[in-house]
Amino acid sequence: MNKPQLPDFLQNIRIVLARPSHPGNIGSAARAMKTMGLSRLYLVAPKTFPSDEANTLASGAVDVLEQAVVVATLSAALEDVTVACALTSRRRELTAPLSTPRETTPELVARARAGEQVALVFGNETFGLSIEEVELCNRLLTIPGNPDYFSLNLAMAVQIMTYELFSHTAVGVDYLRSDGDSASLGEIESFCGHLQQTMDKLGYFRRRNNERMMRRMRALFNRAGMLREEIDILRGFFKQAQRAADGELPPKPPLNEQ
Amino acid sequence: MNKPQLPDFLQNIRIVLARPSHPGNIGSAARAMKTMGLSRLYLVAPKTFPSDEANTLASGAVDVLEQAVVVATLSAALEDVTVACALTSRRRELTAPLSTPRETTPELVARARAGEQVALVFGNETFGLSIEEVELCNRLLTIPGNPDYFSLNLAMAVQIMTYELFSHTAVGVDYLRSDGDSASLGEIESFCGHLQQTMDKLGYFRRRNNERMMRRMRALFNRAGMLREEIDILRGFFKQAQRAADGELPPKPPLNEQ
Repeated sequence: MNKPQLPDFLQNIRIVLARPSHPGNIGSAARAMKTMGLSRLYLVAPKTFPSDEANTLASGAVDVLEQAVVVATLSAALEDVTVACALTSRRRELTAPLSTPRETTPELVARARAGEQVALVFGNETFGLSIEEVELCNRLLTIPGNPDYFSLNLAMAVQIMTYELFSHTAVGVDYLRSDGDSASLGEIESFCGHLQQTMDKLGYFRRRNNERMMRRMRALFNRAGMLREEIDILRGFFKQAQRAADGELPPKPPLNEQ
Repeated sequence: MNKPQLPDFLQNIRIVLARPSHPGNIGSAARAMKTMGLSRLYLVAPKTFPSDEANTLASGAVDVLEQAVVVATLSAALEDVTVACALTSRRRELTAPLSTPRETTPELVARARAGEQVALVFGNETFGLSIEEVELCNRLLTIPGNPDYFSLNLAMAVQIMTYELFSHTAVGVDYLRSDGDSASLGEIESFCGHLQQTMDKLGYFRRRNNERMMRRMRALFNRAGMLREEIDILRGFFKQAQRAADGELPPKPPLNEQ
């Protein structure tokens, strides 16, 4: 299976960091974005940018930093955006209904697919988003978490959101899987027949309930997700066992030849 | 709504870091765990532990580090575990079928709920898990991401996995929502009636298609998720507009009194 392409809609989704204080977080956010195929970073009045620290933490995602758009106000970052999601972990006096990433990402992806510009807006590390900043957004998102320890790091929050968005792509991990070597149910059935025949030949079923035992064996091998290669190995072993029962095996070599 | 309790099953899930090199990653992983309600950290032959750097990056999650279990081998960390998931981002020669966190977490949660011990196993930052380490696990997980930039930081991977697990709790964000102030469809309908009556009184509909316009207005306000307080504000405004149409408003004060 070939390596899949990133879908175009990811380019219609931007990450906006409002007044970030720590350059390291900018770099980690860029890295988090790129791992999930996003590249459009907006920085609203960053305390320090560009910086060596951000570049170091961005690791292979320095290109995201180089293309980052620095603006003075949040409105400037949202000019052409139709849906802006404010990420917040505080109970707000504001009356926009609070939703979760999993509830909201399907809409965001649908809009981005339709060519609309979508933004995820993250606040300052210490103070979060101001009321004025939240009011510039039309969605309010909270990442669910431990009610007694709401302490998601900025870049971690970016990672979770971009991961949720990425889960709507068709990329998945199929292309990393080994190619078509899962055994079919027919192959497993015929494998189980071979096992039964071998057990029978070895006299294993004597005085035992062979139907019940084979039912257990069928259940095990059906459940195990067998691969063809594994079936081949075991069937080779069965053949050898049958040969042994027929007295057809060559005598074991003496110890000093082993 | 009261703050919800963390469900017990989270205590049956452990995070295992195999041979971590950087103390900072141990601290960040502990913080990531605690944000998602996990507390059981196993460290297999960590290069440096305990350390000030880990404590600093753990932020409020130093308790997770203090309770961490340090073992010499991965088998020791998995002794009583029934399902161990190896996190890997490499195409493996190994034949365990690769799955995603979203595919696998339902099973992990079901087992943890049933009292089984479940482990998520993360490898060294540079080398990942060795083949021998992967072979000690019975599930193979890959977090989907940009095929051209597979560079998830260790703690980020821990964050995504624990976030997925947490999404199976009933905690959510409902308890952070403002209480029951959404307007009902009946309230919105009567609000729209008030709007129509006001527009009519102001002579707004003259020569216009009022049915079509009111259909648009109903669609807008039904879609907007109106809150009672917002309806109250607008209805107050409508009343005032009607009064103005009746010539009932007091004259504007002269400019110097404004």
